[in-house]
Amino acid sequence: MTTNASPPLATANEPPRGFPTSEFESRLDRAQRLMAQQDIDALLLTTEPEFRYFSGFLTQFWQSPTRPWFLVIPARGKPVAVIPEIGADYLRTTWIAEEDIRTWSSPAPEDDGISLLTGTLREVTGRTGRIGVPMGRESHLRMPLADFDAIRNTLPGAEFVDATPLIRALRMVKSEAEIAKIGHICEIVSGAFEVLPNLISTGDTERDAFRKFKVDILRRGADDVPYLVGGAGPGGYDDIISPPSSRPLQAGDILMLDTGSTFDGYFCDFDRNYAFGHASDAAREAYTVLYQATEAGLRAARPGATCSQVFESMWSIIEAHSPSASGVGRLGHGLGMQLTEWPSNTDFDNTVLKPGMVLTLEPGLSIAPGKMMVHEENIVIREDGPELLTRRAPEELPVVR
Amino acid sequence: MTTNASPPLATANEPPRGFPTSEFESRLDRAQRLMAQQDIDALLLTTEPEFRYFSGFLTQFWQSPTRPWFLVIPARGKPVAVIPEIGADYLRTTWIAEEDIRTWSSPAPEDDGISLLTGTLREVTGRTGRIGVPMGRESHLRMPLADFDAIRNTLPGAEFVDATPLIRALRMVKSEAEIAKIGHICEIVSGAFEVLPNLISTGDTERDAFRKFKVDILRRGADDVPYLVGGAGPGGYDDIISPPSSRPLQAGDILMLDTGSTFDGYFCDFDRNYAFGHASDAAREAYTVLYQATEAGLRAARPGATCSQVFESMWSIIEAHSPSASGVGRLGHGLGMQLTEWPSNTDFDNTVLKPGMVLTLEPGLSIAPGKMMVHEENIVIREDGPELLTRRAPEELPVVR
Repeated sequence: MTTNASPPLATANEPPRGFPTSEFESRLDRAQRLMAQQDIDALLLTTEPEFRYFSGFLTQFWQSPTRPWFLVIPARGKPVAVIPEIGADYLRTTWIAEEDIRTWSSPAPEDDGISLLTGTLREVTGRTGRIGVPMGRESHLRMPLADFDAIRNTLPGAEFVDATPLIRALRMVKSEAEIAKIGHICEIVSGAFEVLPNLISTGDTERDAFRKFKVDILRRGADDVPYLVGGAGPGGYDDIISPPSSRPLQAGDILMLDTGSTFDGYFCDFDRNYAFGHASDAAREAYTVLYQATEAGLRAARPGATCSQVFESMWSIIEAHSPSASGVGRLGHGLGMQLTEWPSNTDFDNTVLKPGMVLTLEPGLSIAPGKMMVHEENIVIREDGPELLTRRAPEELPVVR
Repeated sequence: MTTNASPPLATANEPPRGFPTSEFESRLDRAQRLMAQQDIDALLLTTEPEFRYFSGFLTQFWQSPTRPWFLVIPARGKPVAVIPEIGADYLRTTWIAEEDIRTWSSPAPEDDGISLLTGTLREVTGRTGRIGVPMGRESHLRMPLADFDAIRNTLPGAEFVDATPLIRALRMVKSEAEIAKIGHICEIVSGAFEVLPNLISTGDTERDAFRKFKVDILRRGADDVPYLVGGAGPGGYDDIISPPSSRPLQAGDILMLDTGSTFDGYFCDFDRNYAFGHASDAAREAYTVLYQATEAGLRAARPGATCSQVFESMWSIIEAHSPSASGVGRLGHGLGMQLTEWPSNTDFDNTVLKPGMVLTLEPGLSIAPGKMMVHEENIVIREDGPELLTRRAPEELPVVR
């Protein structure tokens, strides 16, 4: 049985790890073209996905908040990294050139890389450059605010402008190598969801169910399961963001598990529902509505369509079933180096879909007060329409006996 | 054999989940006393550990960068949460009062909670209050910078001051309930390290070793293994932050695994070294030096001593062995809701140790160019000295046959 096998080597069908240098050259070239169009002299990047996107630097070390890491993208030439010494040896194994790695001994009490970074920005842009920093929706600055304010004060001639649109435009369209990594983790987790009925049964607590599922995903070759949420309850669940409880699964429960697992730094993000013992008509019906809403999303998600159209296609199915349903914000989002990325399938996001975009379709509805159901698939937009990266959920709510 | 057992329920010796309301009342009371001393009218908190510290809101949902979450601590009265609707049901299960939860439908295109937050700050502080925001070392602001700049512009009479020292003072000293959670995850992982020689052998790739170890930790009752790094190589390893490779372990290798695993939102952070087949004299000697340095740290880490004294106690042992050793920055740090917290065992951190502080002792040294060794234990400071939360590493470098 799968659950008692030793961890497989799980390398048989793995896409290659990392990226060829040409991928980073292409990312940099696209960035610098957009920078030229937008009259931006340098990008200052402080967050893990952006640093990794341009450098290939993949490490869990970012989980320690102690040290800031900076990457400066100049208008011409390669990225310049301004980083704590502790990361230099590993960064030298990426395509970043030795001469473009500037280090200091961090943590430092007074000047934690700030004069080194300010000097680099001045060198790259002059005293009056326009410096792009992501400061828009879904972004944050990963460095002490006081240090950033100090940099702004030290470079009074520089103009700091929002680089969110630029970064979003770059990262939203994935390369084939990126899509292969997302597709691989979707395959691994699809397999885990399919055998879940053999793994989990009534009597298991929610916490047991989460643990067994997580262990199975790891054994199947995922690098990590950074995100696993879910819910269980009679005929539906009441929230989808709380940690698992110690309540045992019972006949009549619906269990939903939603995971962002990773392979080589890329996420899947999808969920599955299971009834235990038996399923109520209301739960079966809700499941079918969500299945049909997802089908509508799959028909709508074509190059040239907007995210708001994809949203409307799914929302119209949900609304026809539950006329009193209130807007739940969004029905899916971009996916890649982060669990959630731009764009959003909402009524206000008019992003035009292009081949290479990877999205989730994520309809949800309320079954009764305090009982909800959600459903999620991952797709990549191709020239001729969407390609499922997940193995499609069963058409009817599966019942675990 | 452990590796083929079913996942244990692992609840036998678990400390209780969550905290009693009295714990949150005490945290709030301590915060408000410090606020009064520092003439701060409100704290504005945007990051997961701070939000959780005052509310008990524990969710992986923070991994999605899409939505900002805000907690406002007023000078008197309970915290006010300004959060996306999607989190309201779960937040209502915490001690935060229904009437203190203010929600909006996020993501929103133009105003993602900002007018709601600004109104709350104005209500709590008036137009001229002093608003504390963590903006110092090891902090960041988890919201779009443009939105924060807009708030500063909308409240020109308000003064935004650095709340890092206040938050640090609060969080550095742990309650017994917090220490029990950290101690529990240290116990779980200590057990996993002790059986590792039965689990991993030459021929396993680094990636296999990481996966087996992670699965074992989960089975022993950890909620999660968010952080696992390490290295392996002949006679030592060359870096400690890169992901595992596909290189098989060989006789003569030293393997180091370093994990931040969690129980109920609290971390351990420690490592262990293993020689495979045989160990060189240089590796054995380095191990002994690090063991002795840690012993020196254990003697030094008493109430009233400073972190810099703990650092010096360990550093003097390392330096006596390797006179050419250069400073490696820090030899340990605080630990709790985050993998790394204040204070730091560095030559510049003069934080005075107090009972209830939880620290890592983490000496490291270079064996040869490109070959290093590190060693780490977790302790809590008690009235009469340090108490180990980890089971002490073996006195001599273990050799896996």
